[in-house]
Amino acid sequence: MILTVTLNTALDITYRVRSLRPHTSHRATEVVERPGGKGLNVARVLAALGHEVTVTGFTGGATGRAVQDGLTAVPGLVDALVPVTGPTRRTIAVVDERSGGTTQLNEPGPTVTPTEWSAFLEAYEDLVPSVSAVALCGSLPPGVPVGAYAGLIRTAKAAGVPVLLDTSGEALRRGVAARPDILKPNADELAELTGSHEPLRATQDARRRGARAVVASLGTQGLLAFTPEGRWHALPPTPQHGNPTGAGDAAVAGLLTGLLDQLPWPDRLTRAVALSAAAVRSPAAGEFDRTTYENLLAGVSVTAA
Amino acid sequence: MILTVTLNTALDITYRVRSLRPHTSHRATEVVERPGGKGLNVARVLAALGHEVTVTGFTGGATGRAVQDGLTAVPGLVDALVPVTGPTRRTIAVVDERSGGTTQLNEPGPTVTPTEWSAFLEAYEDLVPSVSAVALCGSLPPGVPVGAYAGLIRTAKAAGVPVLLDTSGEALRRGVAARPDILKPNADELAELTGSHEPLRATQDARRRGARAVVASLGTQGLLAFTPEGRWHALPPTPQHGNPTGAGDAAVAGLLTGLLDQLPWPDRLTRAVALSAAAVRSPAAGEFDRTTYENLLAGVSVTAA
Repeated sequence: MILTVTLNTALDITYRVRSLRPHTSHRATEVVERPGGKGLNVARVLAALGHEVTVTGFTGGATGRAVQDGLTAVPGLVDALVPVTGPTRRTIAVVDERSGGTTQLNEPGPTVTPTEWSAFLEAYEDLVPSVSAVALCGSLPPGVPVGAYAGLIRTAKAAGVPVLLDTSGEALRRGVAARPDILKPNADELAELTGSHEPLRATQDARRRGARAVVASLGTQGLLAFTPEGRWHALPPTPQHGNPTGAGDAAVAGLLTGLLDQLPWPDRLTRAVALSAAAVRSPAAGEFDRTTYENLLAGVSVTAA
Repeated sequence: MILTVTLNTALDITYRVRSLRPHTSHRATEVVERPGGKGLNVARVLAALGHEVTVTGFTGGATGRAVQDGLTAVPGLVDALVPVTGPTRRTIAVVDERSGGTTQLNEPGPTVTPTEWSAFLEAYEDLVPSVSAVALCGSLPPGVPVGAYAGLIRTAKAAGVPVLLDTSGEALRRGVAARPDILKPNADELAELTGSHEPLRATQDARRRGARAVVASLGTQGLLAFTPEGRWHALPPTPQHGNPTGAGDAAVAGLLTGLLDQLPWPDRLTRAVALSAAAVRSPAAGEFDRTTYENLLAGVSVTAA
């Protein structure tokens, strides 16, 4: 059983419109609604790969109920979300039919009270001892202490459970100091953390800050990994065109399954790159194209970096 | 008791953003959520004026539950919405802090099945005999026959209950032929119905098509009424600045209360204009600024047209 933590879960709503023009009225020609937030996307990919996965974090209001309704449809996924009074946030993606561009509108999320945060910590401490890996994913909703991930990492490590961290900004800076087993930043997050836009140097710097391994997702440039076993650059055979949202979450799912299967690092990266590329070919975050995934596995190149 | 019908109810969501730029990501600094759809806005204004009001139409899914939760908070309002399987639509208004402009994204609404439509008709027929007026408001969701309003008008008239129609396009064209007591189009709807952009001529033409009285809402140009008692143009003392969404719905509420109080037409128009202007001064549809309303009542000018 893998545990994914999504403190700022979301109801992801995608609208398709002819062409978005500010200060005019639009009729959405298509409306798609899915559970969202990085940790829930990771969990849906894991479940689709046949893994048992428990999700925790917060859920509130009518949007939270809609998220939970969406999760009950996922076989192998256990919902251990903790209720809060404030409503789970919505994210709105407006896809422009004419240009293919996407405009994103994100709600901030519910304000979590100290009592609700304590209830979450208790639930987390109960869950951790019985899982084989923990993934801490995404932004913190208002009210959650900025050092939250550092504490959650220490709890997992004290229980001997490996932990992966995928977040940004100050939550990332504080979290990495608590020595997660794997850190999975994207290029922007890595640059913000280290001040360097040179990926190899920045990945090395991030590792020095406390992470046992750093795997940076560089968009079409694949994954760059700095680990105790070595440094690698993993690339799909051809760049994939499609929706990049959720590609990083699919990579996280690949890294987690590789960790549990005790694969050598190059094989873990192969799996993560193939899943990530297959996610780009899928219209929604948290999903991937299985045929693309299986076809790509043989074609990923992993070279020493 | 007044009955308002909103076949395409909505959960109205308003986001405030710094400046909407297509194909970029935005964080909403403020999120406001309210029951929406013209008939629900009319009902909320009526309830705020101290009238008892029943709302019917359709409700479905998590968004429908959120709409109904919002309605339970309104004293004097009875919820007689009919359940459907499809989810109640959302409307998203994105207010640009920098320019003040609003970008609107509207979902189409649930597809209503023939069985659900029959259930509504039964509920409507049960409600009509015990009410003193009916208002039929807004667009039709997918699946509802385009002649729906014509049938609902005939049912009300057969029960001797006066009926007001506020809709657009083909639903308006079919509805007016069933001879509603009051038709409340805006300038665009009136022009689409009659082919004329000259308001006085168009209002007269709309009346010839079957409405007993036509009250056209002309934005900052106030109301233009063509009735069996005469023709009037009603204007607020000064143009009001603010949010015009819901101004027409407030005018409908004013016309309905004037009808029930058996006021002469000029007094009904005074009430409708004052409420409409007070709604412009309020940030959300279905609400009005009471002080503005009371102050404006003495200042509305009603002149023969």
